Amino acid sequence: MAQDIFDKIKQNRGPIGQFAKGVHGYFTFPKLEGEIGNKMIFRGKECLVWSVNNYLGLANHPEVREADAKAAADWGMAYPMGSRMMTGQTSEHEALENEISDFMEMEDTILLNFGYQGMVSAIDALVDRNDVIVYDSESHACILDGMRLHVGKRLVFQHNDMESFDKQMERATKLADQTNGGILVITEGVFGMAGDQGKLKEIVEFRKSGKYDFRLFVDDAHGFGTVGEKGQGSGEEQGVHQEIDVLFGTFAKSMASIGAFICAKEHIVEYLRYNMRSQMFAKSLPMPLVVGARKRLELLRTNPEHKNNLWKIATALQEGLKEVGFDIGVTNSAVTPVFLKGNLAEATNMTFDLRENYNIFCSIVIYPVVPKDVIMLRLIPTAVHTLEDVQYTIDTFVKVKEKLDKGEYKAEELAAVEVDKK
Amino acid sequence: MAQDIFDKIKQNRGPIGQFAKGVHGYFTFPKLEGEIGNKMIFRGKECLVWSVNNYLGLANHPEVREADAKAAADWGMAYPMGSRMMTGQTSEHEALENEISDFMEMEDTILLNFGYQGMVSAIDALVDRNDVIVYDSESHACILDGMRLHVGKRLVFQHNDMESFDKQMERATKLADQTNGGILVITEGVFGMAGDQGKLKEIVEFRKSGKYDFRLFVDDAHGFGTVGEKGQGSGEEQGVHQEIDVLFGTFAKSMASIGAFICAKEHIVEYLRYNMRSQMFAKSLPMPLVVGARKRLELLRTNPEHKNNLWKIATALQEGLKEVGFDIGVTNSAVTPVFLKGNLAEATNMTFDLRENYNIFCSIVIYPVVPKDVIMLRLIPTAVHTLEDVQYTIDTFVKVKEKLDKGEYKAEELAAVEVDKK
Repeated sequence: MAQDIFDKIKQNRGPIGQFAKGVHGYFTFPKLEGEIGNKMIFRGKECLVWSVNNYLGLANHPEVREADAKAAADWGMAYPMGSRMMTGQTSEHEALENEISDFMEMEDTILLNFGYQGMVSAIDALVDRNDVIVYDSESHACILDGMRLHVGKRLVFQHNDMESFDKQMERATKLADQTNGGILVITEGVFGMAGDQGKLKEIVEFRKSGKYDFRLFVDDAHGFGTVGEKGQGSGEEQGVHQEIDVLFGTFAKSMASIGAFICAKEHIVEYLRYNMRSQMFAKSLPMPLVVGARKRLELLRTNPEHKNNLWKIATALQEGLKEVGFDIGVTNSAVTPVFLKGNLAEATNMTFDLRENYNIFCSIVIYPVVPKDVIMLRLIPTAVHTLEDVQYTIDTFVKVKEKLDKGEYKAEELAAVEVDKK
Repeated sequence: MAQDIFDKIKQNRGPIGQFAKGVHGYFTFPKLEGEIGNKMIFRGKECLVWSVNNYLGLANHPEVREADAKAAADWGMAYPMGSRMMTGQTSEHEALENEISDFMEMEDTILLNFGYQGMVSAIDALVDRNDVIVYDSESHACILDGMRLHVGKRLVFQHNDMESFDKQMERATKLADQTNGGILVITEGVFGMAGDQGKLKEIVEFRKSGKYDFRLFVDDAHGFGTVGEKGQGSGEEQGVHQEIDVLFGTFAKSMASIGAFICAKEHIVEYLRYNMRSQMFAKSLPMPLVVGARKRLELLRTNPEHKNNLWKIATALQEGLKEVGFDIGVTNSAVTPVFLKGNLAEATNMTFDLRENYNIFCSIVIYPVVPKDVIMLRLIPTAVHTLEDVQYTIDTFVKVKEKLDKGEYKAEELAAVEVDKK
C-alpha cells in the first residue's frame, strides 16, 4: 500500500516548523499591536520597532487613513467581484494603472490582485519551454516559485556576481540557440534581506555592448518609492529605468497596503492581461485597496518629504552603525543589515535580550539564509522613526555586541524556553 | 544569438488574447457598475446580472457594509504589515481562524492572504517528490498551478468518473509503493463551471472499503456557505465532511470578499503555517478583510435566510429552465449552466443580443472549456435575485434559443465588431 503523507508530515515539520513549539508567538508569529509606527506594543510592552516595511510612513498618514476609511464606506470590501477579465473591471482600476504608468514613465501598467501570485503568473506567461531563464541566486520566493513552473532551462548566477552572470549568459545563449528560444533575465531592484541593489546597470551593459540578447524582468518591491530621485526605484537610481523591460512593484512596502503592479510596453501589458493565470482566474483587487493606492501614490509623487525623512533616518542609522564599527554589508537601500558572529542559541538569546531588556524589536535572520556562524539583525528604517530612535538603537547594539563578544549569550537553553516559563 | 521573447509575444497573443482587440471592454473586462446586486449598470444601461458569485447576497448586506466601513476606519488598510510569521500576526486573525474551525467543526484553520496562491502553496507543502497526486481533470487553475510545482507523479482522472478514478488510483498505488511515497487526491466540492459537485462520497468509499490509502484535499470554493444543511459545504451535504483531510474554502464567493482558509487536523495546519511559501513570504490579510470576514461568517452561521433565499432562486431558475426544455447539465449546486448548440460567432451574437436588447448580463463559456459546437451560458443565482428576475430570464432564454435555432445569430462578423462601430 501507499504511505500516509500525514505520517511524513508528523515526522518532518520543515526547516522552521521543527522549532515551532519553542518559538511560536515570540520569534515566529509575534503580535505587534497598536498603530504601525516606530513604537508598537509587543507582549504588553512598548517597543521600538525596526521590522515593518512601512518605509515612507504612509500606513497611518492622516490622508491615507481618511482615504481608506472613505473608500470602504463608499464601496464595502466586496466590490468588484470576479476576475478583472470576467466581472472585476472598473474605471478606478484603470485610473490607478494610468497613474502608475505616468509616475513610472512607462507605457502601460497592469494591476495585480496580489504580488506573490502575480509574479509567479507573469514569469509563467512570459516564457515557454524553449526559453531560458537566467536569475540571481538570492531572488525572492515568488520569483523562485514562478521559475519552478518553467519547464525550459533555468540558470542561476551567483548573487550580484557579474562574472557568474557572464558565464551563465554565455551558456544561456547557446541553449536558447539550440531551442530557437529567448532569454529572460530576472533579478531584484533591492534585495530585501541585505539591502544591496541588483546590478541592473551592469546587466544592461551586457546588452548595450551587443554581447547578449535578453529581456530584463526586475522585481523592485523594496526599491519602488524608496530609491531614485523621483522614487521610481532602482532602475531610476542606476540610470537604466527605461532599459527594464518588465518592472514589478508592490503596494506592500512603501505603499503600506496589498496588491502590486507590472509596468512594460503596451503590447506586453496587454498580453499579460490576457495570459496571467492568477489574474484571469482570481478576484480583482477590491475597490478600497485601489482607491487607497491612488491616494498613496499621490502622496508619494507630490510630497518628497516622506522619502527625505526615510533617508534622513536610514543614513543616520547606517552611518552611525558603521562609525561604531558594525558590519552592515553592502546595503545601498534603506534596508539595514547588521552582521555579527554567533550561533543559533546566541542569536535567539540576544534577540530575547533586545526585546525584553532594551525594548527593541528587530528581526533576526539565521542559517540557511546566512552562513551557520553568522547572525544577521535586519533593521527597516522608516520616515516615522526619529533620530533619537536611531541613537538609542546604536547605543544598545554596542552593549549587546559586547555581551555577545564576551560569550554572555552562550546559554544552552534557548531564550524561547524561558519565555514559556514566564 | 537568442531569439527575442517579446517577438514571440507579438505573434502569439494566447487563446483569449488573440481576440482582445475586438472583445476588450465588452466580452472581456466588461465594467459592471453600481452596487453589487441583481441589477447593475453595464455601458450606461441597467442590466439583470447573473455573473457575480455573491451567492448569499452579503456584498451589500447593511451589517457587512457597516463592519467593512468601521474596520477600515479603525485600522486603515495597512495593518498588519509583513507576513503572519514575521510581523503580521494579530488576535483578530486567530479569532477568525477559531470561528471558522468552530463553524466547520474541524480541528484547526489557517487563513490565506489570497486563495489562489494559498492553494498553490498548500499543494506544494503537502507533497514531496515521492508522493503521487491524483486529481480531477476539471480542477481549477490554482490547483493545476500547485500541481505544476510537484516534481513527483501526477495522475489525472476523467472528471467525476469513478471508473477512471479507480484505474488511476491503482496506478498511483503502484507508483507510490515504488517510491515509498503517499497519495494525495485533489478534487473540488462544487465545480464552478458546470455546477456539479465532486464525487466526494464515492471517493471516500474507496478508502473506507480498504481498497486504497490516500489523503483527500477538497477545494470547496463554491460549496462553502451555499450547500449542506449548515453551509459547511459539499462534504456536509454528501455526509463525508469529516472524511476530508484538507478542506479549502474561500471568502471570494459566498463571503463576498477576498482571502481564504484551509481546515485540517491541528498538526497539519501547524505544518502548513510553517511551510506554505506564499504565506511565509507575503503579507498577512489586512485587518478590515479579517474583521469583515468575521461579520460575514456570523451572518452565514446565524441567519439561514440568506442560504434559503439563494436556494429559492436557484431552484426556481433550474426547475423553470428544465420545464421549458433547456439542458442544464447535472448541476447540484447553485451554479446553473445552460447548454446550447452553436459556434463561436453565434455565441457572441447571442450574448450581444441578450445584453443589448434584453438587458441580461451573463457569462458565456466557449471552446476549449466546452466542445467546439457547444455554447454554455453560465448563470449564478444569488439570494438578492427575485422570482420575477427568474421568470423574465427564462422567458428571454426561450426567445433567444428560438432565434439561435432559426440561425438568426449566424452573422459572419462578430457582434463585438459592431460594438466598436457604435
